[in-house]
Amino acid sequence: MPQGRPTRIPDDGLTTRARRNTAVLAVHTGAGKGKSTAAFGMALRAWNAGLDIAVFQFVKSAKWKVGEEAAFRQLGRLHDDHGTGGPVQWHKMGAGWSWARKPGSVADHAAAAADGWAEIARRLAAQQHDFYVLDEFTYPLNWGWVDVGEVVDTLLGRPGRQHVVITGRDAPPRLIQAADLVTEMAKVKHPMDAGRKGQKGIEW
Amino acid sequence: MPQGRPTRIPDDGLTTRARRNTAVLAVHTGAGKGKSTAAFGMALRAWNAGLDIAVFQFVKSAKWKVGEEAAFRQLGRLHDDHGTGGPVQWHKMGAGWSWARKPGSVADHAAAAADGWAEIARRLAAQQHDFYVLDEFTYPLNWGWVDVGEVVDTLLGRPGRQHVVITGRDAPPRLIQAADLVTEMAKVKHPMDAGRKGQKGIEW
Repeated sequence: MPQGRPTRIPDDGLTTRARRNTAVLAVHTGAGKGKSTAAFGMALRAWNAGLDIAVFQFVKSAKWKVGEEAAFRQLGRLHDDHGTGGPVQWHKMGAGWSWARKPGSVADHAAAAADGWAEIARRLAAQQHDFYVLDEFTYPLNWGWVDVGEVVDTLLGRPGRQHVVITGRDAPPRLIQAADLVTEMAKVKHPMDAGRKGQKGIEW
Repeated sequence: MPQGRPTRIPDDGLTTRARRNTAVLAVHTGAGKGKSTAAFGMALRAWNAGLDIAVFQFVKSAKWKVGEEAAFRQLGRLHDDHGTGGPVQWHKMGAGWSWARKPGSVADHAAAAADGWAEIARRLAAQQHDFYVLDEFTYPLNWGWVDVGEVVDTLLGRPGRQHVVITGRDAPPRLIQAADLVTEMAKVKHPMDAGRKGQKGIEW
């Protein structure tokens, strides 16, 4: 159902317009499905609003989410060719980050994850995009490949109006604390429990 | 993270290919954000796979989700004009179902919801689409406007390979039992808790 009015008026000295225009930091976590899918759904909405979209996938395998990637490349083309929606960039760690000089270095996943975050931090400082998806980013955080404290500080201090959505299981408590919007996707039932494998159009 | 292999091989006599091609009934429920957004993210993936998409929105207000609707209309146009992805239909109860003869009848929301479901049941019987989103459909079910038992029977008995995703809070237990994939989106934190209002590109 449509969400109603805010339950209280905050005492933060902001006008409604200023508050409305505050950038959102969202986290989708939990063991259930839909974390990344909902992030891409949000990106779809942002694209339609003309926002500049950048997706960063912190996963090793390039097999997954190819459907979303292909669809967003089409959307990006709609922007480039017809001015419809916003521009789209899609970067994958698995294939070696597109900006990386040495594609061979992706064998070191920890270094690749750190490179990915360093690039995102640079872009946030430069206000390069409007809407960032950091897909499966909780894993390098939890594995200690990227420092949670530095990430939280950078996100909280990011200039301008840049929305960031982070997905992945077991989001670190400090990240949850820093976020404006946190949803836990809890698994109630999953087809793989019944031995089904994934299928095209549904799983990728 | 990419989901791994099934935890067990089911004893259902199906080949892996047959099992892989089984149609999915998914339910996104819970009080958190992301139920509809994840459904539209799934639809995006299905669109990319060339599936025929139909969205049915059981909401009164036409204001919400206009971003998704606009984006999917663009995607549908990509199909129609260039053969990219699948065809897209988007039907809203709020504006009066597009197939309804008497637009004035939408003042009776219970009747409109029943009409919507009757049309969906007809399309399922005719195998008209590949991927259905029944957005916010749990509300008419819970309000008794549409019979849960009939819905569950129709969904379980639907022919061919038609995927259905149903969203909304408080999914009825019988629907959850019938579903293959159920995710509960639990609210951990929401910007409106802090008095923020929704904003374009994020909330709609």
